[in-house]
Amino acid sequence: MSENEKPKVHTLSKDEGLTNGGNNVSSNVSDEMTEKFDLATVYVSDAQYNRNSVFDTSPQTVRLYLLYNHWFMQTLVYVFIIVNLALALFEDPAVVPLPIWATSTTEIICLSAFTVRMIHYAKIIPKDKFWKDPKNICIIVVVTLSFIDLTIYGALKSTGYFAIRWSRVLRPLLLVNVTEGRQLRRAFRSIRNALPQIAYVFLLFMFSVLVFSLVALKLFGKRGLLTIDGSPYFTDYVDIVFDLYVLVTTANSPDVMMPAYNYSDSFTIFFILYIVINIYTFMSFFLAVVYSNYKKHLKEEVRQLVKARRFKMCRAFSLLQEARGEGGEPVVTQAKWNHLVKLVKPNISIAHRELLWSVLDDQNKGHIGKFAFVQLADLLSIQVITVKSQPHPIHICFPSMYNSPVSRFIRYVVHHRMFVHVYDLIILVNAVFIGLDEENPVVSNAEWGFLVLYMLEIILKLYATEPRAFFARHHFWNWFDTIIIVSALFGTIINSALKHSGGYTGRQILDIVFILRVLRLIRLVDTIKRFRAIINTLIKIGPTILTFGQLIVVVYYIFAMVGMELFKGTTFAKLNYCKNNFNNVVSSFIVLLELTVVNQWHVLTSGFTAVTHISARIFFILFHIVVVIIIINIFVAFILEAFLVEYTVDKSDLQTSLEKKIEELELNVQQDGVDTGLVDAMESNDNELGPSEAAKQKPSLMFKIASRRSRTVDGLLQRMFETEIHPEDFEEEEPENINFSNPVFDSV
Amino acid sequence: MSENEKPKVHTLSKDEGLTNGGNNVSSNVSDEMTEKFDLATVYVSDAQYNRNSVFDTSPQTVRLYLLYNHWFMQTLVYVFIIVNLALALFEDPAVVPLPIWATSTTEIICLSAFTVRMIHYAKIIPKDKFWKDPKNICIIVVVTLSFIDLTIYGALKSTGYFAIRWSRVLRPLLLVNVTEGRQLRRAFRSIRNALPQIAYVFLLFMFSVLVFSLVALKLFGKRGLLTIDGSPYFTDYVDIVFDLYVLVTTANSPDVMMPAYNYSDSFTIFFILYIVINIYTFMSFFLAVVYSNYKKHLKEEVRQLVKARRFKMCRAFSLLQEARGEGGEPVVTQAKWNHLVKLVKPNISIAHRELLWSVLDDQNKGHIGKFAFVQLADLLSIQVITVKSQPHPIHICFPSMYNSPVSRFIRYVVHHRMFVHVYDLIILVNAVFIGLDEENPVVSNAEWGFLVLYMLEIILKLYATEPRAFFARHHFWNWFDTIIIVSALFGTIINSALKHSGGYTGRQILDIVFILRVLRLIRLVDTIKRFRAIINTLIKIGPTILTFGQLIVVVYYIFAMVGMELFKGTTFAKLNYCKNNFNNVVSSFIVLLELTVVNQWHVLTSGFTAVTHISARIFFILFHIVVVIIIINIFVAFILEAFLVEYTVDKSDLQTSLEKKIEELELNVQQDGVDTGLVDAMESNDNELGPSEAAKQKPSLMFKIASRRSRTVDGLLQRMFETEIHPEDFEEEEPENINFSNPVFDSV
Repeated sequence: MSENEKPKVHTLSKDEGLTNGGNNVSSNVSDEMTEKFDLATVYVSDAQYNRNSVFDTSPQTVRLYLLYNHWFMQTLVYVFIIVNLALALFEDPAVVPLPIWATSTTEIICLSAFTVRMIHYAKIIPKDKFWKDPKNICIIVVVTLSFIDLTIYGALKSTGYFAIRWSRVLRPLLLVNVTEGRQLRRAFRSIRNALPQIAYVFLLFMFSVLVFSLVALKLFGKRGLLTIDGSPYFTDYVDIVFDLYVLVTTANSPDVMMPAYNYSDSFTIFFILYIVINIYTFMSFFLAVVYSNYKKHLKEEVRQLVKARRFKMCRAFSLLQEARGEGGEPVVTQAKWNHLVKLVKPNISIAHRELLWSVLDDQNKGHIGKFAFVQLADLLSIQVITVKSQPHPIHICFPSMYNSPVSRFIRYVVHHRMFVHVYDLIILVNAVFIGLDEENPVVSNAEWGFLVLYMLEIILKLYATEPRAFFARHHFWNWFDTIIIVSALFGTIINSALKHSGGYTGRQILDIVFILRVLRLIRLVDTIKRFRAIINTLIKIGPTILTFGQLIVVVYYIFAMVGMELFKGTTFAKLNYCKNNFNNVVSSFIVLLELTVVNQWHVLTSGFTAVTHISARIFFILFHIVVVIIIINIFVAFILEAFLVEYTVDKSDLQTSLEKKIEELELNVQQDGVDTGLVDAMESNDNELGPSEAAKQKPSLMFKIASRRSRTVDGLLQRMFETEIHPEDFEEEEPENINFSNPVFDSV
Repeated sequence: MSENEKPKVHTLSKDEGLTNGGNNVSSNVSDEMTEKFDLATVYVSDAQYNRNSVFDTSPQTVRLYLLYNHWFMQTLVYVFIIVNLALALFEDPAVVPLPIWATSTTEIICLSAFTVRMIHYAKIIPKDKFWKDPKNICIIVVVTLSFIDLTIYGALKSTGYFAIRWSRVLRPLLLVNVTEGRQLRRAFRSIRNALPQIAYVFLLFMFSVLVFSLVALKLFGKRGLLTIDGSPYFTDYVDIVFDLYVLVTTANSPDVMMPAYNYSDSFTIFFILYIVINIYTFMSFFLAVVYSNYKKHLKEEVRQLVKARRFKMCRAFSLLQEARGEGGEPVVTQAKWNHLVKLVKPNISIAHRELLWSVLDDQNKGHIGKFAFVQLADLLSIQVITVKSQPHPIHICFPSMYNSPVSRFIRYVVHHRMFVHVYDLIILVNAVFIGLDEENPVVSNAEWGFLVLYMLEIILKLYATEPRAFFARHHFWNWFDTIIIVSALFGTIINSALKHSGGYTGRQILDIVFILRVLRLIRLVDTIKRFRAIINTLIKIGPTILTFGQLIVVVYYIFAMVGMELFKGTTFAKLNYCKNNFNNVVSSFIVLLELTVVNQWHVLTSGFTAVTHISARIFFILFHIVVVIIIINIFVAFILEAFLVEYTVDKSDLQTSLEKKIEELELNVQQDGVDTGLVDAMESNDNELGPSEAAKQKPSLMFKIASRRSRTVDGLLQRMFETEIHPEDFEEEEPENINFSNPVFDSV
């Protein structure tokens, strides 16, 4: 540690004295302090995780609120939601049929859990706020309706009547309206905000389809043309509209135009115009409308989010502030700050905390003002990795052996570039062997050789690098390699053991072993810098893709439930599609995925329409509009925006200040120089430790910004528009609309 | 006209005196002046149209240059290019076969025309510049190669050998490299600039496809599964890669996964992962890469364009400048300026010119400095419509009748909103009648009724509005209506005449009449404001869509020529697709369009592959990469950007200053208030004249900014980034890289 760090360690011990000493003087004062710290902790962590609940500030409520936001409680809620959603697997039409009493009991347990959670929440939130919040009302309504439906269904079934579990459609709403579903609600809000404009473009698009259909009717209707299956071509207006709508999905191109084309070349002009206008222009227009709205709306949301966050930090500040000097600005002392940070992030290392303080208190005054204090929430969300350069365990146990020339040579070789290249070559050779027939004894024996080589690589690396550093949390590829190789080793051993014992062939295990073998090849990507940059961007977008995953699950679930009621028991054998049906929730999801990909859309649609009723088309068109036109476009809009942000916004100012401090303190780990190319602003690699030789001349404790990654979706969103929000502009008053995170059911 | 305009009219007459007076004093001075004006004119119009040729400034060359840029010469070049491209229709394999001597002669004429044009250009441009310009070299090479190919082909054919017209592939390059093809070259440059980055993403994407294919081979290869046509499923690695590549186009979804799905539900996980990663994520990523590059590159291009434009305007200024006072800044007098504007835009109205001057010389000094002068090129590209409120001709001939209460009432009714609504209703009823069977006598008679109603509408409108105002150039819908109705009237009359005369049924005429009838319905769009806004944005994007049209023609043409050589004479009857072939250029284009839409991609591809060779797949995959992955994404990127610009950038500052001036002079036509909604920044409507009652109290001459539309692509592009370019920042030196418009063949 550098010289000027020492006084702070001293302050730290003063801080310890603060709480202890407080106890001695007066337990009342201490209690009051503790309560204040509790409340401040809540404010800071609310700011950090962008929670927007308005709670009573009484000490008891604060404790209840802390319990409510405990990770265990939050996980439990999600477990119950998943169980509740998964019930669809066991309810009629079931994948694995279970008796009604079993599913009903499970559902009652889940619903009770939600009720308890709701009561817990009601105890924290002021009454008037609680009842004004649409998401609470939504949960209460869903839970109540589910209970009612369950009762009616049970009663009807037991008396032998026909009954529908209609409340199942409502289940995914719980996922949306639960307190933790902020990201999902935001995604829905994006959609809702874009809806009016999408609607106008959609109406114009439909007008265009209708006009084209009318032209088609007049041009082709009287010509007596036949489709390939012998039915009359373009004679009924409603059918033409449907066929041309399907053409927009491209699913029936070019079949829909073949009869006209076979009749006359000039009729293709009609279809070319249709394709250019309705497929390319209008579909791009949908994307443009969604994208521009998404961007606009996101900006506003993030602005409010930052405002709310600052407001909360100001509150925390006012709890801990004390006047410094006469008429001086109120400040927070380092002792109090340290205590707060320890409460907010219990497992933060002392070094990390010292680092944060030195960033905030850059003039080394021992106290910070409001402006610096407010930055704490942002600083805490930056992942700083504390790298301790500890000596290797073998070095401690057998220092002479570890420093022997042979050992030094081995370590030199392992850290050499050629070592990586040799293993890349081995992987490539391995890829060829994987492609070959594994029943050939040469190939299956070679596999053992490869396994040994890979194991050797890991062991060598562990020998050359300190194991705790090797398995540091952010060394993704080290973890990846080790898990894949060890699993493959076990799999191969089990497999050959089973083989030799005869009898059972263990096809499943073999499949897994095959997949593991192929997955090893992925590591090749990591050796090419530009690929690594792309992969890093993909990983960064990852969390938000998960949000969209939830969104898709919600929409699919609702459509699957409705679809199952409409189409269950219907199958059609065309094109071997008998498994594409709505006979259970898994099949339904797969059919819906196929409908999302859009190809053969008309075959699937007409299949279901044929066995039910022509109006079933409405279900499929609705699905197309919701998923393909809206959700997929929102997804593309997100990827676009995320990519552009990665590309243009280098990193947030705060991160830079932290990095500057790390550099100042000369504690930074040297990062590999990254080629400026494909993605200048994409991040530098963080998956390889600097050579240990270089590390020796460095201080034993080093910091590193964790890959400049904004790991949370909020962080990424915030970065998107951070440049446009003034850091000095923070408000004292409560933001006008603190409830902005729940307007899924607001009026438009 | 307002008071302060009068002195300028006086100045105008001074201006007339300038040239006449000049002649009297000395013809040498006048000649010199004329030459200077000629040169200045060239600079200004080069700046206005963003031409970047560097020419000699000798008077003779300037005159040659003016001839070179004459609209007639430019049109002629395009005619020859089109004729040259259209030769493919008549050459073997031909749509309309012509003898070889006919097509060869035509081609020789075209090639000679290009040669003459090239020689003309060489006379204008300094030698060294000429030979450094890749587009000139490209044209020379293409023309030379075409001559050589033509000679070889003629010789071989006449001696009965097999010959290929390989130079036909090069023809579209003329379209790209001709001086006027600036937009097209820019589009190609956008693509070329995005290529390196697309390549990296594409390689990673292919790596992903290869890895997935390997997993598929291991998972499904040994299971003995069969596809629907009984062939083994996923047993050959190369076939798997191809099948999974096709899945990315979505063309074989869900068929490709059905055998695996039918075997086991859990195998769908493989396909779901594949679809999420390779279809949704990577395809969005392609769009993101293309979009971000497009944006970045465009910005740089426009920046250079604006620089070059300012440089040219500065040159023009320095030709006409004169020192004002001692040590004063050089200025250009109004007289000279007027003369220049008349030369640049011969058909500009005096009023319009006065308006422009009053914008530039806002302090009414009688002369302008460099900064104001430079703005001329931008001002000239803003379309200002001069609206003269003339009395109605009937009013002049029969004033008493025109002002009679009945006549007044009619005019009141026609201008009333209800008049529009009544006709909207009539159109709706008409739509229903169009949908009905036209062989029903009631329906066919009703058609006459509708025609009369529509004719009546036009006549009434012409009665109520001054005809010249009604048919003003910017009144799109008036023109549209009149043309459609009159054509429909003539068509219907001819049709029924033919019908009554018996014999010939005139199916073609009937088709046209039907289409005209349906087209009438489009006018409905115009009555809904939000639709009008969307349509206006579409119209604005129009010119650039035309550029993309050229781009597509170039790419299609090249692929069609290659495809015809590879696949001519091959057809396959599957799915009635026998007309989908490469047997002539029209069929080829249609097949390529079908391949662009991507559906049934594998059916078409495998059809051609089956009749030729498996390696034909390369041709189709290449086409997919070029058109679907690159060009379509560039197109979407353009629409996105154009939409966002329309949405966020209100209008350029210059337009605002012009508008302000118009407002100041109280000469602006009151525009209909436009609802702020869908497209706030989309433009207000300009298709309806204000009520004539209101116009009466207005001055007789009014100006109007033509719909704030940037009618040229350059204008739109410039607006995109104008806000980021400082207006004051203009350079005296020649921009570093004046040749930036021709780097299609630069090294990367």
